[in-house]
Amino acid sequence: MDFFNVTILPDSVQIKVPADFTLKQVFNENGINFEFPCGGLGVCKRCKVTIIRSDGQVQEALACQYRVKEDVTVKLPHKEAKHAILSEGIERHVAVDTLVKKVYFELPHPTLSDNRDDWKRVIEQQGIKTSLKVLQDLPEKLRESDFKVTAVIEADRVISIESRDTTHKLLGMAFDIGTTTIAGYLVDLKSGKDLCRVSTLNPQTRFGADVISRISYASESAEGLDKLHGAVINEINNLIQEAAKQANHSPLDVYAITFAGNTTMHHLLLKIPPKYLARAPYVPVVTAPVVVDAAEINIRINPEGKVFAFPNIAGFVGGDTVAAALAAELDKADKLKLLIDIGTNGEIVLGSKGKYLACSTAAGPAFEGVQISCGMRGASGAIDHVSIGEEYEYTVIGNTSPRGIAGSGLVDAVAELFKAGIVDEKGRLLKAEEIKDPIGKQYKDKITSINGITAFVIAEGSSGPVYINQKDIREFQLAKGAIAAGIEVLLKEYGAETKDIDEVFLAGAFGNYLRPESACDVGLIPKELKDRIKGIGNAAGAGAKLALISQKEYERAVALSREIKYIELSAHPDFNSIFLNKVGF
Amino acid sequence: MDFFNVTILPDSVQIKVPADFTLKQVFNENGINFEFPCGGLGVCKRCKVTIIRSDGQVQEALACQYRVKEDVTVKLPHKEAKHAILSEGIERHVAVDTLVKKVYFELPHPTLSDNRDDWKRVIEQQGIKTSLKVLQDLPEKLRESDFKVTAVIEADRVISIESRDTTHKLLGMAFDIGTTTIAGYLVDLKSGKDLCRVSTLNPQTRFGADVISRISYASESAEGLDKLHGAVINEINNLIQEAAKQANHSPLDVYAITFAGNTTMHHLLLKIPPKYLARAPYVPVVTAPVVVDAAEINIRINPEGKVFAFPNIAGFVGGDTVAAALAAELDKADKLKLLIDIGTNGEIVLGSKGKYLACSTAAGPAFEGVQISCGMRGASGAIDHVSIGEEYEYTVIGNTSPRGIAGSGLVDAVAELFKAGIVDEKGRLLKAEEIKDPIGKQYKDKITSINGITAFVIAEGSSGPVYINQKDIREFQLAKGAIAAGIEVLLKEYGAETKDIDEVFLAGAFGNYLRPESACDVGLIPKELKDRIKGIGNAAGAGAKLALISQKEYERAVALSREIKYIELSAHPDFNSIFLNKVGF
Repeated sequence: MDFFNVTILPDSVQIKVPADFTLKQVFNENGINFEFPCGGLGVCKRCKVTIIRSDGQVQEALACQYRVKEDVTVKLPHKEAKHAILSEGIERHVAVDTLVKKVYFELPHPTLSDNRDDWKRVIEQQGIKTSLKVLQDLPEKLRESDFKVTAVIEADRVISIESRDTTHKLLGMAFDIGTTTIAGYLVDLKSGKDLCRVSTLNPQTRFGADVISRISYASESAEGLDKLHGAVINEINNLIQEAAKQANHSPLDVYAITFAGNTTMHHLLLKIPPKYLARAPYVPVVTAPVVVDAAEINIRINPEGKVFAFPNIAGFVGGDTVAAALAAELDKADKLKLLIDIGTNGEIVLGSKGKYLACSTAAGPAFEGVQISCGMRGASGAIDHVSIGEEYEYTVIGNTSPRGIAGSGLVDAVAELFKAGIVDEKGRLLKAEEIKDPIGKQYKDKITSINGITAFVIAEGSSGPVYINQKDIREFQLAKGAIAAGIEVLLKEYGAETKDIDEVFLAGAFGNYLRPESACDVGLIPKELKDRIKGIGNAAGAGAKLALISQKEYERAVALSREIKYIELSAHPDFNSIFLNKVGF
Repeated sequence: MDFFNVTILPDSVQIKVPADFTLKQVFNENGINFEFPCGGLGVCKRCKVTIIRSDGQVQEALACQYRVKEDVTVKLPHKEAKHAILSEGIERHVAVDTLVKKVYFELPHPTLSDNRDDWKRVIEQQGIKTSLKVLQDLPEKLRESDFKVTAVIEADRVISIESRDTTHKLLGMAFDIGTTTIAGYLVDLKSGKDLCRVSTLNPQTRFGADVISRISYASESAEGLDKLHGAVINEINNLIQEAAKQANHSPLDVYAITFAGNTTMHHLLLKIPPKYLARAPYVPVVTAPVVVDAAEINIRINPEGKVFAFPNIAGFVGGDTVAAALAAELDKADKLKLLIDIGTNGEIVLGSKGKYLACSTAAGPAFEGVQISCGMRGASGAIDHVSIGEEYEYTVIGNTSPRGIAGSGLVDAVAELFKAGIVDEKGRLLKAEEIKDPIGKQYKDKITSINGITAFVIAEGSSGPVYINQKDIREFQLAKGAIAAGIEVLLKEYGAETKDIDEVFLAGAFGNYLRPESACDVGLIPKELKDRIKGIGNAAGAGAKLALISQKEYERAVALSREIKYIELSAHPDFNSIFLNKVGF
């Protein structure tokens, strides 16, 4: 093997390089920032550099194509990278290098001295793939448009050739498919800018509230999977239509969609049988990233559009967690980070650059208002904060009359009831006469019995009292105990201690509203981390958008999904005893 | 960049290698023969080598996956490569490394401590692609077959997963699609062995005898292309069925098909509009290799089977010429070679390793019996050789009563008539009384007038005389003049002389029957090359088979198609005068 010296101007960096490496490889492997608008396929011709050969000859070359075959000096042009700013979730600047790209060409007409075939006229570069349909349509498309065409490119493939310059029509959508809610973000892929956000309830809810019931429904009959798949696809099509309309575009202008969801949502979206997710050892059909034609799953965007499903980690830690880990940049963390995403399920990731562990707990429903007497989602009318001390206070989302209690309100309420001596260390809601704490005593009138169960009335709502009862507290204990135990198991497996955790990221709406003190007071999160808790909003949605805008971010997500090691709590020898230790206060 | 020393045992070869190179790269780039049964995807686990690390630690690793990160010693196992022998065309040994492969797996069942997803259980290696359909069917397929499955692999893609061990069912077909004839070869892709050959007339003939009339037909109406495409696909399906039946197999056992044909046949096969092939500057839609799903063009083999269309060179030099160049190994030639493939068109390639020129002449029909009064293809009843000297002799294919004259017979007849003084230097067929040559005079009774045109009766056939007339000789002169001129133009462009040509390969049936002396006597091929002419049979078919059996051969064909430079004779300033110089004798 031969090696050559490459000197890079203006900084005069000198690098030893094996023969036949492209300059793109040299730049990438040596951390030299340089943009490749078509992804390095050699089709856009925009990564031109000046090559000064050892004999003094000067030539221009494409950095993605030029192979080093002698000692050379390479002069880089000055360029400014386009950057996008995300407006949702964790804000972050990324260079726009979208999963689907467009390149506009004004081509010379064929002549006897330039009689290249039509395909080579558009894509000179060898090895770029395309579909038979593109080739079948190519001759007429070129000639009807006076040889001015736009190539739509995904990875190393031309997925479509369009007449004239259509580079202004290039949208993408990022979807966060939750068990309960679907949120979609329409993005202009030319600028990387957000256009609008749409959301709705997941229509699969009518077939079952949680993933287990949906897996059962999908597995019980031949049509079950069809129905669940059809329902979510139909709703996604509605959202795409709605978002496109809001932005004065057609759904046909959408070429790329990223999906982040838990593994069950992922399988149902792709019509992959989820049956074995629900029975031990809970194996998914696929965790690797799946890219399909939108048309293949009946998603109505541009007929040549592509769908990128986020990779999963395991049966109960899915692409939404990967997307959240990407948004939180766990792969760049020098110190230990804890990521908790509490949705309908609760997923936990512990790790820093290069080593990550994840687990899943079925803890979520309580925090989303499910299985709680007056529980509701964090919407208008939900009590989100409660304070039971010298003063008695609560706040309601939307400042309206209270209708129910949100997850964050539940955590607050339980924490405050405990501190006021109204709930004891084992989680028992004391009767009025049993309260000994002087502060607690002030609120004994709020303790009553509703439907035969001891309850604490937080507020009088327009349609009756908003309360939590003994059963709610038990549900809560199971939920927070599971998460607390999950954190401890992960720490143990990681060989780390609580104090090593540098930051706790709380993803999801719940995480944004949650009061860190209360989370620590109830033992949901270890007390010593109180000042290190950070709500990061819809991190799954933010991650899905990042991947849509940037090939590199997508690849980071894929790398994360491979590196995060899943710990099956139900198979862990210490889980049960840790859990039982965590249910009290 | 870092570099390490790799020592390879048993031969103790030492190679300096850049960090992160795989052993596969090291082997390939340093000419070390080693087999990668799954093509180096890391899925078959059969390229195991022993690694001896610098600290003395010994481990096994896959050569295709192991990346060099330190100085190591690599011990190769003893292996014997499987080789195939081609029985048609040019015989040549190639290692079996088929375009579509099968790998059988007996997998462990999932457990809580091994809960990899189904896909990863089969294909551990990252980055291997598959279809959504494979994933959708995967969970049931694995479980119904007790986790014993066969993966069908094409390039870096699993195209199908089959229950149990189906590696004995892996056939391929190589097709040579001529304007007039279609020949198909059924090959066992496990052994690389030929199973049978089938052939038939190209049914497109009823829409036009030559490519120009078919291009017209395809371009004149919307259904024209559909009909031509449908006709050839239908016939190919018949041939596949017939071949499979002969070999006691089902067409479903066929997974890969290679097609070599001229550019028009290529476009019609793929339903790509050929319109612009027929008008200056004669540009094809695509010359790059096209790989499509068989189902996409309605070819009825295994539903997941693949079709590989040979790459073209230009509008009138197609994949059949590439296949012939591959069979003739022009890319390994140290000395100048001339390849002439005379079918319905006549394609000529001149070159040696690294530099090749090609041109096309519309010369073929005469040699295939078209446009010649008694012309016929080289089939039973065709006169294939004629001798007009002291003795008068002719031979008939099949030793039956003569029905017509084949291309080789035509060349012989013209050569002999000229030598006997019956045809003059300008190509005029003399009247009986004009003949001066004593030998020629012996045959003056054979000169007569048929339909008002002077003719020479070669033989009395069962259904009338077999003759050639003045018009036939004129057709012949145009044909041979075009080829002779093509050769001269190529030599001129190459900067070479006739004497530099080391070997002349004559491809096609015509080339096999042709008598070198006659070809030189009539000036079809320069006289000084008489002893260097070699008939190589159906080289296009042989090339198509080579590519089917060996990935490497396929890649050689692709490289050849890119390197062969096309010379458009109609645009060449000297062609017309050279041509006019070549029509006489």
